Amino acid sequence: MTVRITGLEVKDVRFPTSTANDGSDAMNQNPDHSLAYAVINTTDPSLSGYGITFTIGEGTDIVTHAVLAYAPLLIGKTLEDPVTDMEVFWCDIVRYSPLRWLGPEKGVVHLATAAITNALWDAYAKIAKKPLWKLLVDFQPEDLVRLIDFHYLEDVITQDEALSMLRDRAHDKSTRESELQSLGYPSYTTSAGWIGYPDEKLRRIIREKCELGWQAFKIKVGRNLDDDIRRAAIVREVAGDTVDLMLDANQVWNVPEAIESMKHLAEFNPLWIEEPTSPDDILGHEFIARHIAPVGVATGEHCHNRVMFKQFFQRRAIDYCQLDACRLGGINEALAVLLLAAKFDVPVCPHAGALGLREVQQHLSIMDYVAVSASLKGRRLEYADSFNDAFVTPARVVNGHYQLPDVPGMGVELQPSAYETYEFPNGTYWNRKWVGKV
Amino acid sequence: MTVRITGLEVKDVRFPTSTANDGSDAMNQNPDHSLAYAVINTTDPSLSGYGITFTIGEGTDIVTHAVLAYAPLLIGKTLEDPVTDMEVFWCDIVRYSPLRWLGPEKGVVHLATAAITNALWDAYAKIAKKPLWKLLVDFQPEDLVRLIDFHYLEDVITQDEALSMLRDRAHDKSTRESELQSLGYPSYTTSAGWIGYPDEKLRRIIREKCELGWQAFKIKVGRNLDDDIRRAAIVREVAGDTVDLMLDANQVWNVPEAIESMKHLAEFNPLWIEEPTSPDDILGHEFIARHIAPVGVATGEHCHNRVMFKQFFQRRAIDYCQLDACRLGGINEALAVLLLAAKFDVPVCPHAGALGLREVQQHLSIMDYVAVSASLKGRRLEYADSFNDAFVTPARVVNGHYQLPDVPGMGVELQPSAYETYEFPNGTYWNRKWVGKV
Repeated sequence: MTVRITGLEVKDVRFPTSTANDGSDAMNQNPDHSLAYAVINTTDPSLSGYGITFTIGEGTDIVTHAVLAYAPLLIGKTLEDPVTDMEVFWCDIVRYSPLRWLGPEKGVVHLATAAITNALWDAYAKIAKKPLWKLLVDFQPEDLVRLIDFHYLEDVITQDEALSMLRDRAHDKSTRESELQSLGYPSYTTSAGWIGYPDEKLRRIIREKCELGWQAFKIKVGRNLDDDIRRAAIVREVAGDTVDLMLDANQVWNVPEAIESMKHLAEFNPLWIEEPTSPDDILGHEFIARHIAPVGVATGEHCHNRVMFKQFFQRRAIDYCQLDACRLGGINEALAVLLLAAKFDVPVCPHAGALGLREVQQHLSIMDYVAVSASLKGRRLEYADSFNDAFVTPARVVNGHYQLPDVPGMGVELQPSAYETYEFPNGTYWNRKWVGKV
Repeated sequence: MTVRITGLEVKDVRFPTSTANDGSDAMNQNPDHSLAYAVINTTDPSLSGYGITFTIGEGTDIVTHAVLAYAPLLIGKTLEDPVTDMEVFWCDIVRYSPLRWLGPEKGVVHLATAAITNALWDAYAKIAKKPLWKLLVDFQPEDLVRLIDFHYLEDVITQDEALSMLRDRAHDKSTRESELQSLGYPSYTTSAGWIGYPDEKLRRIIREKCELGWQAFKIKVGRNLDDDIRRAAIVREVAGDTVDLMLDANQVWNVPEAIESMKHLAEFNPLWIEEPTSPDDILGHEFIARHIAPVGVATGEHCHNRVMFKQFFQRRAIDYCQLDACRLGGINEALAVLLLAAKFDVPVCPHAGALGLREVQQHLSIMDYVAVSASLKGRRLEYADSFNDAFVTPARVVNGHYQLPDVPGMGVELQPSAYETYEFPNGTYWNRKWVGKV
């Protein structure tokens, strides 16, 4: 029986991570990790699609407002074949002229596009009774390329070239899938390294994570060079010289400052410096990368669309691609970036150091290995603990490796208790907060 | 007496330009030119600041929602010295972390930043009893550079270098100001060339504008090459071979399509092709520019911040800079781009083919000539007729030249009748529309 979309709801859900300095960095000192949480309801009462984009507190309401602006493009539409449908949905949403004007394909309207597109994908995966990664890896190459909007990319990759790449890697997909089923997907953790953590907490969490089998750790830098040096030294002291150390400046430096700072931090042998400067500065990243090699340059969590990633790759300006399917316009555009990255042989290490992001990006890293890049070289998927219990099926990591999700869908559905508590401003947590402030 | 900000109001005002296909182009076929109209009220009942950003109908409410999110950063603040204050206001607004996350410095939050920043500038110009351009040109170079956020620009221009550029051009400012007072600032018109206009209307308006003294005309292209060729031929037939002809594709082409289309349109000797592809594609514009010279490449109305313009200039990817102080974060950031453009010797021809935009950008073109680039070479400021009467002090053009505004402020204050009629959804025009649809 054909399923039809009957409604689009959206919730503003804010988790008070700032109370413990979880998520803090040099740019964002008091973030409350938050979700614009889109729910697509259908004629099948047992089928809803849940999708998110990620925000850090205030302003989440601007995104939820934008999500609802797209409702007329969805209501009444049928959900039949994901490939045929999503090709159309993507164009309907992204090319809708008056809302496109407010980006285009960037900022609030693109965050809203992500939440909606991801909710649609959750619904399709549930209809197929597969976790999203499995729905994606099972697509034939000729179907996959239909999901990708090649417009504005044709000067560097054509649909034919993409098809040929995907076909080359299709014959041994099942081998790689079995490998991940038994070993999991390698991860690194950001849980220890938030900038607001005192040294003792950094030291304690690094020790705990080492004991749990983690071998890669990211710390936030950029507020103060002396702090950065001291904190990097703590990681090396506790975890040793063989683990991977990642640094993340969250955009606070200009180009000369990034190069200068990395002169002092290179002695800790970091794998990469992340967001060393403005996320829009392709040429700046290129310049930094030339000057700090062999330390790598990473960016992507604020890289807003496939056209920007295209250029980062063309200029070989980044060594690690940190795409985010909640900053890009959802799964469709993330697939485009996976293909571009594979073509330019840049490892993809998605932005996943927060609640919800872990749950979304794991599907893309698995898809990348099984069907697109066919490589794990240089690849680790970020992880951070935070409100894991808020989700019905939270991401699971064992021995530093993501375990393959086995429940149908994308896995971002919240427990009812989570939004009853944290929906803003009327959830019980915030309601009390506001009462207290009067 | 010190003036203090007491309130921030915002209106969603939509002008029904689509009914006559005014504003139509290959990407935006039915735009209703609209304003997110910010009003800053003060302790002085005779002083309000009016600022705008520009939208095209649906979704303007998302921008007005975003404007209000910044209210806590403004209410209660004093308006004293524009230089000292605006340096702080800019950083407070643009670096406010939770809202910054939703861009950063792009999309809806940056459009909101523009409306607010522009409203502040309107208030400061009124306090100084000067039209905005005059307030700007009268600043000393050492004050002007304080208004510019050099962060992320330092690898191509430093504050010292900017200061030296401005000082070089300061001694003969008054000569250039007098010249513009008598001659006006040269303009081109887009009034004839909207893509939805039938050939006869194009022909008639070109003829009328020639008679009024215009010598430069822009037409929209990109929907259909045969149409483009026929319409370009009409302009040359009616206006002759000596006028300037500009073409505008509004982002519809990919890179190879742009180059191919321009092969067929080059015979009409266009001055530039505007927005030939994605506004984010710096390298794409560079590639197009190399392949279609001597036809120029122009872009900027969707270029979202100074970091993007920096790179367009670094790669010499554009021949004309079409900055928009309502897409950038208002006057402060537009000043940064004027300086960058002057350094790279790229003429600035702002995006002004719509109501409200004319009124804002004229101040920047005048500023550019008098105090920054000191050149008119290759420079024309766009103009289009549309709802001129909606403004208390609309931009005035005589003989194809903008006349210098002489009323204090920025000049975007709407007539009360304009928002009583066109405020959405409760203005009398829209109210009737909705009633009619029930």
